[in-house]
Amino acid sequence: MLCTYGESGPFKTISYQLSSIYKMEKPSKEPETKSERVSKLSGMSNGLKRTISGVLLSALFFTIVYVGVPTIYTMYLIVQIKCFDEILKIGYSMKKVQEIPLFRTLNWYFLVVANYFLFGETFISHTQVFIRKYYVLEALASYHRFISFCLYFLGLICFMTILRKKLIRQQFSLLSWTHFLLMIISVQTYMIIQVMFEGIIWLVVSLWLVILNDIFAYLFGKYFGKTPLISLSPKKTVEGFVMGGLSTFVLGVLISYLFCHFKYFVCPVKYEEINGEIVHFSNCTPSDLFQPIPYQIFNTGISLNYYPFMKHSLYLSIFASIIAPFGGFCASGFKRAVNVKDFSDTFPGHGGFVDRFDCQFLMMTFANVYIMTFVEHSDVDEIFRKILTLTDAQQLEFYSLLKHSLGEQLVGAVK
Amino acid sequence: MLCTYGESGPFKTISYQLSSIYKMEKPSKEPETKSERVSKLSGMSNGLKRTISGVLLSALFFTIVYVGVPTIYTMYLIVQIKCFDEILKIGYSMKKVQEIPLFRTLNWYFLVVANYFLFGETFISHTQVFIRKYYVLEALASYHRFISFCLYFLGLICFMTILRKKLIRQQFSLLSWTHFLLMIISVQTYMIIQVMFEGIIWLVVSLWLVILNDIFAYLFGKYFGKTPLISLSPKKTVEGFVMGGLSTFVLGVLISYLFCHFKYFVCPVKYEEINGEIVHFSNCTPSDLFQPIPYQIFNTGISLNYYPFMKHSLYLSIFASIIAPFGGFCASGFKRAVNVKDFSDTFPGHGGFVDRFDCQFLMMTFANVYIMTFVEHSDVDEIFRKILTLTDAQQLEFYSLLKHSLGEQLVGAVK
Repeated sequence: MLCTYGESGPFKTISYQLSSIYKMEKPSKEPETKSERVSKLSGMSNGLKRTISGVLLSALFFTIVYVGVPTIYTMYLIVQIKCFDEILKIGYSMKKVQEIPLFRTLNWYFLVVANYFLFGETFISHTQVFIRKYYVLEALASYHRFISFCLYFLGLICFMTILRKKLIRQQFSLLSWTHFLLMIISVQTYMIIQVMFEGIIWLVVSLWLVILNDIFAYLFGKYFGKTPLISLSPKKTVEGFVMGGLSTFVLGVLISYLFCHFKYFVCPVKYEEINGEIVHFSNCTPSDLFQPIPYQIFNTGISLNYYPFMKHSLYLSIFASIIAPFGGFCASGFKRAVNVKDFSDTFPGHGGFVDRFDCQFLMMTFANVYIMTFVEHSDVDEIFRKILTLTDAQQLEFYSLLKHSLGEQLVGAVK
Repeated sequence: MLCTYGESGPFKTISYQLSSIYKMEKPSKEPETKSERVSKLSGMSNGLKRTISGVLLSALFFTIVYVGVPTIYTMYLIVQIKCFDEILKIGYSMKKVQEIPLFRTLNWYFLVVANYFLFGETFISHTQVFIRKYYVLEALASYHRFISFCLYFLGLICFMTILRKKLIRQQFSLLSWTHFLLMIISVQTYMIIQVMFEGIIWLVVSLWLVILNDIFAYLFGKYFGKTPLISLSPKKTVEGFVMGGLSTFVLGVLISYLFCHFKYFVCPVKYEEINGEIVHFSNCTPSDLFQPIPYQIFNTGISLNYYPFMKHSLYLSIFASIIAPFGGFCASGFKRAVNVKDFSDTFPGHGGFVDRFDCQFLMMTFANVYIMTFVEHSDVDEIFRKILTLTDAQQLEFYSLLKHSLGEQLVGAVK
């Protein structure tokens, strides 16, 4: 897993809790399987294998990022669908529900509606240039919330029509399960996409931080680890945890430094119409966060560039190495609750999409909240996009209000 | 119930569905209780009693509305807490969960966090004047989302620590149930409060429409009803349904006409600082929706005032009489699923808060979506409030952007 160090240090109590639960849940009569014994013997190389394939997966991710924004969109859509599928399947097996016609279809319908609503909201607020070009999109954007409400309501009506006599409790229970999933998965995907629009760098650095922490905690633990961290996972050591964290801080800052040089990464994602074609406009003047500040090293005459973004990356890395593992932790707890080892076997040796993206999701959600709270993000642009949706008369009313509020003196200074 | 006509006309299939479920769920060996027999005999007067006490409850509501906005806030907070309590209790009885220390506390904690987040969002966007007056509020507003995220995350960590060996499945199941409730109850309350800020008239008229439809469908059904509507409820008649709907259209328009005369109702809720005191500012210039348009009746010389708001009230009344009953309908389905008659016995003869507010909630949610989509609501104000949160430099940048976008000609026309 990408965040195997979730069960360390400050989480000892919870780990203990979970370990005792796990011991209770797993019947002792279940014999050790052959593959489990093999995996124990080749434990180290298995870990290395997982790290390598983790890096390969990440490489795939960065290729996707490099190809462009619509590919990132598509990737997160696939991840989301697979995660929904995996958890939903477990929900079904938990409730031991017999096949009800249309019920699974309805669950997927709710996912589509949630996506229509949430992705639509992003699309409307960020890609005005597309929307103004096509009449259909303009109409859809104007009635977006109303259409979403109707679609959702239609789903509820369908739900009422397919209630089945003796299954009604499980059906309501599964309906709440679906809603919980929508809240967890769709809303988090929406938050990830929002992070991307602030600048691809936020997405990429956040992801790297989680990966780096995983790799280095593993490597340091393997080669220098002596003091066991908790009894639950004998492979985890204090050395791995501490050094992994420190490496993440240092390497995270270095990586941020590198990415700060590329406008493709630091510019907020924007679409503009150039010569009749709609293109991803990545030629902004980078905000203050990404402007180099020369920094003299102890009067040696050697000067290095420092980017204010690096400070933010440091805070993100603290979260990545100490708190993000909780994402995987909740997932582990859940897996133990329903007695499964992995969510699915999509990635051999790694489990399913949820096993792979649990920490990422939490990390991105944190990044989103962090940006909205502590980073002076492109507020002006955001509000300006809203202004463009008003009528001319309203825009003028607004202009007059603003002029009045700013006062003549300030306004006079504007060219 | 305030929306007893939910099981009529277009919902026949679903009603049939539910009736068959109901028949299956209710064991035939359960004898008719004495109170049920009494209630059957005095059915009519019981209905009248319920209508009268419904009107009394509504009178209480309008007193609350008249006292002021903070009282409305408080009322909806109480309604929300009671609804959460009632449904949560049923959830517990469904899962047959033994007492786990802290688990109930944690559910309430999540409600508090959801409220903190959602009510906070409304508070921040609508009551800047309060916030700018107190330093603590200003700090809370700036870090609002971050604090909410941390509080929610803390709740999840607590959840992990109180997992109990053999109850872990039920615990996860209840967690999803809690989240479902938060989504249904907190989010809907949030939407109701948003409706109120657009002008109290929207809240009051929506509520009246549901009540009117209930009363008149009952009265017409009682005195003129001949054709039974569906076999499930012998008391419901086609006459009641149709005439109830028509009465709602007509009386809804009349009521809207009356309310349009009071600035307290038609002005968006706004707080302003006057002589150092913060007051609910209800002395706006009403928007075009509430400006009278003289309307000549067939060249008779008699002229009546028409308010554009009346058109909107007509659309709302269509929803109130045809679709809103579905709110009660979902609640009925749920009650049958868990084999209870009412959610609780807070109001003797009426059931609990959920029984009373099911249709209201749905109606308000519709009103919210309707306003956001079809009514040119106070967009300019809303965006302007956002501008006030920016720094002076950002406001100037914005001003310059807007000036440039509007073009010199238009800007010149502004005084």
